[in-house]
Amino acid sequence: MITVIKNGTVVTASETTRADVVIEDGKVSQIAAKAHVHPPGTSAGGQPSDDIETIDATGKYVMPGGIDAHTHLDMPFGGATSADDFESGTIAAAFGGTTSIVDFAIQYRGQGLRQAFETWLTKAEGKAAIDYGLHMIMTETSPSLLDEMDGMVREGVTSFKLFMAYPGVFMLDDASIFKAMLRARDNGGLICMHAENGGAIDELVRRALAAKNVDPKWHGLTRPSRLEGEATGRAIALAEVAGVPVYIVHLSAAEALEAVAEARDRGVPVLAETCPQYLFCSYEEHLAAPGFEGAKYVCSPPLREKWHQDHLWRGLARNDLQVVSTDHCPFCMAQKELGKGDFSKIPNGMPGIETRMYLLWEGVRAGWITPNRFVEITATAPARIFGMFPRKGTIAIGSDADIVIWDPEREVVLSHKTLHMKVDYNPFEGRTVRGGPSVVLSRGDVVVQGGKFLGKPGRGQFLRRNTRALG
Amino acid sequence: MITVIKNGTVVTASETTRADVVIEDGKVSQIAAKAHVHPPGTSAGGQPSDDIETIDATGKYVMPGGIDAHTHLDMPFGGATSADDFESGTIAAAFGGTTSIVDFAIQYRGQGLRQAFETWLTKAEGKAAIDYGLHMIMTETSPSLLDEMDGMVREGVTSFKLFMAYPGVFMLDDASIFKAMLRARDNGGLICMHAENGGAIDELVRRALAAKNVDPKWHGLTRPSRLEGEATGRAIALAEVAGVPVYIVHLSAAEALEAVAEARDRGVPVLAETCPQYLFCSYEEHLAAPGFEGAKYVCSPPLREKWHQDHLWRGLARNDLQVVSTDHCPFCMAQKELGKGDFSKIPNGMPGIETRMYLLWEGVRAGWITPNRFVEITATAPARIFGMFPRKGTIAIGSDADIVIWDPEREVVLSHKTLHMKVDYNPFEGRTVRGGPSVVLSRGDVVVQGGKFLGKPGRGQFLRRNTRALG
Amino acid sequence: MITVIKNGTVVTASETTRADVVIEDGKVSQIAAKAHVHPPGTSAGGQPSDDIETIDATGKYVMPGGIDAHTHLDMPFGGATSADDFESGTIAAAFGGTTSIVDFAIQYRGQGLRQAFETWLTKAEGKAAIDYGLHMIMTETSPSLLDEMDGMVREGVTSFKLFMAYPGVFMLDDASIFKAMLRARDNGGLICMHAENGGAIDELVRRALAAKNVDPKWHGLTRPSRLEGEATGRAIALAEVAGVPVYIVHLSAAEALEAVAEARDRGVPVLAETCPQYLFCSYEEHLAAPGFEGAKYVCSPPLREKWHQDHLWRGLARNDLQVVSTDHCPFCMAQKELGKGDFSKIPNGMPGIETRMYLLWEGVRAGWITPNRFVEITATAPARIFGMFPRKGTIAIGSDADIVIWDPEREVVLSHKTLHMKVDYNPFEGRTVRGGPSVVLSRGDVVVQGGKFLGKPGRGQFLRRNTRALG
Amino acid sequence: MITVIKNGTVVTASETTRADVVIEDGKVSQIAAKAHVHPPGTSAGGQPSDDIETIDATGKYVMPGGIDAHTHLDMPFGGATSADDFESGTIAAAFGGTTSIVDFAIQYRGQGLRQAFETWLTKAEGKAAIDYGLHMIMTETSPSLLDEMDGMVREGVTSFKLFMAYPGVFMLDDASIFKAMLRARDNGGLICMHAENGGAIDELVRRALAAKNVDPKWHGLTRPSRLEGEATGRAIALAEVAGVPVYIVHLSAAEALEAVAEARDRGVPVLAETCPQYLFCSYEEHLAAPGFEGAKYVCSPPLREKWHQDHLWRGLARNDLQVVSTDHCPFCMAQKELGKGDFSKIPNGMPGIETRMYLLWEGVRAGWITPNRFVEITATAPARIFGMFPRKGTIAIGSDADIVIWDPEREVVLSHKTLHMKVDYNPFEGRTVRGGPSVVLSRGDVVVQGGKFLGKPGRGQFLRRNTRALG
Repeated sequence: MITVIKNGTVVTASETTRADVVIEDGKVSQIAAKAHVHPPGTSAGGQPSDDIETIDATGKYVMPGGIDAHTHLDMPFGGATSADDFESGTIAAAFGGTTSIVDFAIQYRGQGLRQAFETWLTKAEGKAAIDYGLHMIMTETSPSLLDEMDGMVREGVTSFKLFMAYPGVFMLDDASIFKAMLRARDNGGLICMHAENGGAIDELVRRALAAKNVDPKWHGLTRPSRLEGEATGRAIALAEVAGVPVYIVHLSAAEALEAVAEARDRGVPVLAETCPQYLFCSYEEHLAAPGFEGAKYVCSPPLREKWHQDHLWRGLARNDLQVVSTDHCPFCMAQKELGKGDFSKIPNGMPGIETRMYLLWEGVRAGWITPNRFVEITATAPARIFGMFPRKGTIAIGSDADIVIWDPEREVVLSHKTLHMKVDYNPFEGRTVRGGPSVVLSRGDVVVQGGKFLGKPGRGQFLRRNTRALG
Repeated sequence: MITVIKNGTVVTASETTRADVVIEDGKVSQIAAKAHVHPPGTSAGGQPSDDIETIDATGKYVMPGGIDAHTHLDMPFGGATSADDFESGTIAAAFGGTTSIVDFAIQYRGQGLRQAFETWLTKAEGKAAIDYGLHMIMTETSPSLLDEMDGMVREGVTSFKLFMAYPGVFMLDDASIFKAMLRARDNGGLICMHAENGGAIDELVRRALAAKNVDPKWHGLTRPSRLEGEATGRAIALAEVAGVPVYIVHLSAAEALEAVAEARDRGVPVLAETCPQYLFCSYEEHLAAPGFEGAKYVCSPPLREKWHQDHLWRGLARNDLQVVSTDHCPFCMAQKELGKGDFSKIPNGMPGIETRMYLLWEGVRAGWITPNRFVEITATAPARIFGMFPRKGTIAIGSDADIVIWDPEREVVLSHKTLHMKVDYNPFEGRTVRGGPSVVLSRGDVVVQGGKFLGKPGRGQFLRRNTRALG
Repeated sequence: MITVIKNGTVVTASETTRADVVIEDGKVSQIAAKAHVHPPGTSAGGQPSDDIETIDATGKYVMPGGIDAHTHLDMPFGGATSADDFESGTIAAAFGGTTSIVDFAIQYRGQGLRQAFETWLTKAEGKAAIDYGLHMIMTETSPSLLDEMDGMVREGVTSFKLFMAYPGVFMLDDASIFKAMLRARDNGGLICMHAENGGAIDELVRRALAAKNVDPKWHGLTRPSRLEGEATGRAIALAEVAGVPVYIVHLSAAEALEAVAEARDRGVPVLAETCPQYLFCSYEEHLAAPGFEGAKYVCSPPLREKWHQDHLWRGLARNDLQVVSTDHCPFCMAQKELGKGDFSKIPNGMPGIETRMYLLWEGVRAGWITPNRFVEITATAPARIFGMFPRKGTIAIGSDADIVIWDPEREVVLSHKTLHMKVDYNPFEGRTVRGGPSVVLSRGDVVVQGGKFLGKPGRGQFLRRNTRALG
Repeated sequence: MITVIKNGTVVTASETTRADVVIEDGKVSQIAAKAHVHPPGTSAGGQPSDDIETIDATGKYVMPGGIDAHTHLDMPFGGATSADDFESGTIAAAFGGTTSIVDFAIQYRGQGLRQAFETWLTKAEGKAAIDYGLHMIMTETSPSLLDEMDGMVREGVTSFKLFMAYPGVFMLDDASIFKAMLRARDNGGLICMHAENGGAIDELVRRALAAKNVDPKWHGLTRPSRLEGEATGRAIALAEVAGVPVYIVHLSAAEALEAVAEARDRGVPVLAETCPQYLFCSYEEHLAAPGFEGAKYVCSPPLREKWHQDHLWRGLARNDLQVVSTDHCPFCMAQKELGKGDFSKIPNGMPGIETRMYLLWEGVRAGWITPNRFVEITATAPARIFGMFPRKGTIAIGSDADIVIWDPEREVVLSHKTLHMKVDYNPFEGRTVRGGPSVVLSRGDVVVQGGKFLGKPGRGQFLRRNTRALG
């Protein structure tokens, strides 16, 4: 089966080219001014057979499908479970132009890594509509768990997320973190870090609650950006001494970015992602909204004051931030209400898996990033960093034909009513964006077209990832 | 006429792909797992099959031909003329894998820009073996010259080099520089800056000579790196106030790099190039060599202490430096001897147009940069910055087929005896490098193959460049 | 003649002590818990004779008289002459608690330094009511003028002010500045720098006027703080290469302070002063006032946006700024009106010689600086830096008894009607301050007491200053 | 009883004055060009004339006695007890010109603060020959211990030392540290921090020992300076969020200094001390000495590479470091040998209480600091920071007459044989220094003169300290 995408403008991280793209067996086989296809059973120069499907992309961008390197589907958190499972979540992703995700398996205390791995494979199996990889969250670093890390790397789970926050639940002390880093140095794994100083935060939370400060905005006031900056700097220092790279997840604060930039200037291999909520939402506009409205925007790190946004956009433009992922972890309002009267009980997380590409494209329209940088941030860089490149993340000969045909003229009103995530609010409710997916292909299969999902749950494959490539 | 480069590994700034490349009418028309062209014995498209030339690139890299954005061919300087003219210089460039250059036309005091432009076109015409663009050096910024800048931009001379050094010859004061910057803001031109504090340097030179310090090494001692740092910072400040980008040429010093990096971190559009001599040669090893040997290495800015090299390589890896060009400006030893007994009379300049790609590849072999970054530094970035992209600087559909087929196993001993630059010494004499061009194509024509020059002088075309693209 | 200041709290740069101070022959001879005085003609233990004058300082601070290291009395500028001469200016100074000034002699182009020196000595002679030193402004650095610098140092004129602004009038190019610095390295003189990039500023002024932007606020808009930062950085770089300290006068901008702090962190001997107008006035509140009101606040560098003030206060607290002087250069409104319809013709300068100590004390009251730091900034540091310590700038055995007895409870409404400067407006008109001089002594003579001037013009002595002491 | 120190040069943090100093009742009562006291044979004031003691200080400096703010006398550590108790330690201090110390009481886990306080008072009582204060080391921060902090502040124990190193023994986690900081914000206590990342260090130690790397130098190799920089930055961040100052003890590394300087530049109230061993000894020259010799130099943080010293001296000159104390914690070689075959068992600590002033004076002689800065670093600043000023730390009216008469011409060969510390080696064995105490007075009593100890154990008083004064 051959698919030809004709007359589009192919955009990769470094090129913008008027070209046709030919797909054979789910992979890109040809990029050409004019596609040359010799279908089975015809002579050269003959007419195309029925086996050739043609998609016209006139006036549209042909880009690598997005990779969302940070999702939490079907995840238990504080008594609730995130609202999207691997079926609804990956379908929503596809609608938004994303064709691969990397979700997080969680090793709970007392469990092994393999148990976590298998649990999450089970969650995904038969449900995922696009390809998916897994990071491994570690809540302990005993010798046997460290040993298990090596096995996970061999299974294609090549990244390990550690927490400097959530004491008693996820938080590791520095010694434990350092041990995991030293192991990653040897097995090639990439350490991903939630960098906030959980110890100090917990005391601030305790004091806020004791003083009857219970509204959602106190979620932000008890997690000051300076403490994200501190933890980021600490993670970098530990990684530097261990001699490994480190990847900072959901970086939200200028202070943290400064720590990353400073280290990178010295040549230290530090990587970082931010998320759309930090680029487009703020403490004062959203989290500090009156009443319980702010609960919609409770995530960790919290939304920051608006001035941080400039820094984050500059970080993206200057490559001190390499990736935008979503930290998609939606909870319905009924779940959020667990925290009415006590902000610390609001489930942490916001929906985003479907809206990431729409929102980032606003940055393109504003001139803050180019279309090439859009591709790099949403697809190429995460593919590289997480060991999926060049299979994923680009349009190149031999790559998986994970492709989004992007209509720069399409207007969309973002609303939980029309979006496909299973959550009853949207942080960007009512916002009109211009530019969105027209056709989405996963390994050559059209999975979204004409506003319809044409794929099927379960067709998504587990991505055995290679170890990091930071070049 | 169709050319197919088969079985190579195509390397661009962001991809490394096993693919065939098809060239039609001097442009890349197809990149494919297996090239689809009209097979021998058929007449699809009406072309005789003999018109298909195939180049086997098995085991080799297929990369964009290099762009050397800083050359001085046939240039008068201090009573001498640089040893290579547009014929010998461009042939040497081609041998080294470089398929485009941007040379400098010079407006001498009292002259107009057009006069300079025409003089340099005449120098190149009938001689250049590869395509060439021109920057314009301005030694005054009178209102009429500022007006002429607009015309030059329309002619495709879209970059203007100013000097903060060489008082009485090239140096402009800050007011003059600032005026040119304000004009460039309006006409889209890019200001390129030689950033050294010429006023202070001249006093140091005067004092050195008065103290009978006349050896070549005093060229370095009288041009301290701090004064390059100062001038770089000043150029950036003036550009920032004027609201234009600025491109620092031949950056050699850690202090200057720090000024660039600091500004870029703040989001200021500053660009910079360095040169192989600053990456591989040093004050203590070369310029301060005993006797008159150091004269071979006299260029401005001067070679720095070796520790600066680490900073420059890190700047390249981190994209605070975007380009490596050569500042090719060779003088034979007889010319250099004008400065025997007075270092200030040694013609400034070193040969390099042919050896740039060989040397940079050493950085790839050492692991300091990836092959992709090699391509970006030597071709893609200069094409972008100087308004030639995507016609030049990449291998993409519709781009000029300026291609170097690079043999990573080829061993070459660098020597002025075997290299093709018309100068009787080489700064890297005797150095063995591994990796070099096997075939070089310019707009689809094979110009170098089997160690032979197969092109012809005069086939190079003037490159009308667009204005800068800094995304 | 013996004077005893009893029961006060003696404040120096490092101590705060309840002690009596004994003055003999114009110098401090004793500091004691209880003064022991054996007057001439009495036996020990006898009664005090008439020759002992006692001043009661109960409840008051006994501090070193202020040193204003930057005044322009009787100075021609752009067709006007500053409104205070050495008589009115020094009397006003004394009323404000300042007991020494350092004014600026000006070498105009074509003149020698000695001529300038003698001109200014003549201006001061018979008029100055307090002691005075002179800096020398140089507008050229010819070899003969450089030679004259040595002579000036021997005369006690040990500091030389150069301008990077005012092209065509005061501005020196970098080569000229660098030559003066090299000479200062040899003769021990201290280079003082007006650091703004005059070349770029002049072009901005030309463009503003061409666009009919003529109001006073354009004085500020055409002198952006970035250009002060640039020039400050450049002055430091030149000084660093020359191997001499440099003193930045009237630093007004955060960018300039950052350049100073960065250099000091590296151990480079850079010093800087700011002025009360930069600490208390701002562009938006004062210079950009409607109509011609802003003319009152025209000085160079211009008033900055308010946020710079925090940086300056922090610089003072952290010793990146060592001195607060006034740049006292008052013009009456009739003179200011020379610039009606053309901001560039407004005489540059503001009154301040009398109000400096009042205003700085507001910083003490606000807790931004301690009383000790107040003393250091207003007296000790300028004395040290400009070669007058320990004769001036402290209360110590053997020092000149230049003393201000400061009443922390005294309330004063600042107004040109009650202040003693000869200018018909005051930038702080109507502001109530708390804390001011109660008695002022100059070399042991009471010159101000009970709101009356008790000294006499002409009693002030020329201060032959030593070379800098930067310890 | 009256003592007159005649003809000396009085040096304080800001003055250098030829003056006599009169002492009455253990306090300074007069500083005068010529002391006025009741002359022999008269009875003014009713004192017999025999009660006037005169000390001639011709040719000598009269300076405040040193304050050593960091000593560990009679301290148990890892199975050993530091070699000096309060008797031998304070006598040695006095010989070295130090007249006050602040030692550390230790709250061991399970104990209360008062218990620790009383234990240490008992250690000192009847033994201390000079005045002594106490800091409190806290190894837990339970609510009741936090409450006890307030009581300690009232007792004059106004500073609390916490550890980020030595897990399992002294180390607190960030939450515990943060709680103590918040309490200090309320009670005015000053948090003193041992800033090294103990968790990571312990893992490095474990690995080193596992790899049979057991020599003393591995003490340094397992405690990289980057981990001191990290912990210093973390301590500052926590303090910044808590809104309290923090004092970094025994800062040894350029990275840590950079963190301090960066914070201070932003106006954050961070203070820091270094120690003579970090200024004069290095990893490569001392700790990495062959065999077990390095054990003499085992202390924490460890000796750093020599290049750090330049940074520390610059920090002292620029006031990013305010204090030099000793961390005096001597162990005899027999005790050190506990760590033969396992560097981690070598008792941490070096002698220094007696040699601090000798060594720092070498910095004066080298021109790195002035005599005034010497006084500030060794006496005035610690007095201020630790709430003893102006009673201690200066020579001013009303201050305790803790005075060292310093002979700049005295030559001393440092040796454990002639020094008075009870330890059988000296890190500076055989080093000749020039300049040392000639007479030492404690509250007016001559305690050292002519090389003899004239005081008596037990005369030292406990110093009830005020809360911090950071002005």
